Amino acid sequence: MPKVAVKESTKALLIETGIDIMAEKGYNNTGIAEVLARAGVPKGSFYYYFESKEDFGLQIINTFDEKYVAEWNQVLYDSSLPPLERIAAYIDEIIRRSEARQCGRGCLLANLSQEMADQNELFRQRLREIHLKRRDTYAGVLAEAQQLGQISARIDVVEMAEFFLCAWEGAIMRSKVQKDSKPLHIVRQMFFERLLA
Amino acid sequence: MPKVAVKESTKALLIETGIDIMAEKGYNNTGIAEVLARAGVPKGSFYYYFESKEDFGLQIINTFDEKYVAEWNQVLYDSSLPPLERIAAYIDEIIRRSEARQCGRGCLLANLSQEMADQNELFRQRLREIHLKRRDTYAGVLAEAQQLGQISARIDVVEMAEFFLCAWEGAIMRSKVQKDSKPLHIVRQMFFERLLA
Repeated sequence: MPKVAVKESTKALLIETGIDIMAEKGYNNTGIAEVLARAGVPKGSFYYYFESKEDFGLQIINTFDEKYVAEWNQVLYDSSLPPLERIAAYIDEIIRRSEARQCGRGCLLANLSQEMADQNELFRQRLREIHLKRRDTYAGVLAEAQQLGQISARIDVVEMAEFFLCAWEGAIMRSKVQKDSKPLHIVRQMFFERLLA
Repeated sequence: MPKVAVKESTKALLIETGIDIMAEKGYNNTGIAEVLARAGVPKGSFYYYFESKEDFGLQIINTFDEKYVAEWNQVLYDSSLPPLERIAAYIDEIIRRSEARQCGRGCLLANLSQEMADQNELFRQRLREIHLKRRDTYAGVLAEAQQLGQISARIDVVEMAEFFLCAWEGAIMRSKVQKDSKPLHIVRQMFFERLLA
């Protein structure tokens, strides 16, 4: 069914373009006309693919979670590496990507959380779920490290995972405003040298 | 000169109203008409007080820094308290205010940093300066604690201050999306129990 295939690829293109623009500019500041123009998709076809701008935003969040967060998380589940080395590899990969774009954009999920949590309850609920899923992924790796005796048995792994999530998202914001990855490196070092020690 | 006094109070009212609305909705999503309407100031007078929306935004950031950040920082300079108790009192006051508004709004400076750092170089530079000033305020208190032997002499107080700033701003974002102050309490506890130990 080539017609459906074309439709899906156009929809995917609009979502990818929306991810790029919204990561830079936020939800409210992203115009549908700008997304269509950058994607090279004719005006007027947007509502064939999405019910509304809100629907577009929610599908962007879902795609970002399913595609990008899931991709970054693969290293966290890579059982060929010891648990703490997986967290280090995950951090290093995000630092590498951040440096490759001069610390621009920041984290789409954190940006949309700041912007939308008080504005739109559907966005808030979906973002909240994704943040909690990330926290629990980190907690699972820390629990493995604990079982292997790599970190103290007294650490509450869910609280430590929440703490890491806070520090990491804060560091991405700080590096975005500094245009310097130093805050990411500081959080990496403090996390391994002082928090997990 | 009562005319100037009235002018200054109207300008201050517009800035205060702008702080409230921008903290909730961000810079781009805040309309000048909405600010004027909520402040009860006649339409058309905005450009008597501000050169542009950008000028309004920059004056909002400056006022927020000079008035609110400076107010919160007073406790950090309160020499009647030992240094670490000052940091604890500072954290507790922000948690109290956050809980009083059901963890809404978040930190205006972090929100604007996420939204504007890639969009407007004047905003980014100003926000960067304020973040660095906050980091250095925290570092100064940590250096006092170090001189008193309250924390290890091996701690790099500037890096620790950066780490705290990251974790704290991240926790404010997390509590905004959770609508729960737990992340703030976790960061408080981890900071004192594990990082400074």
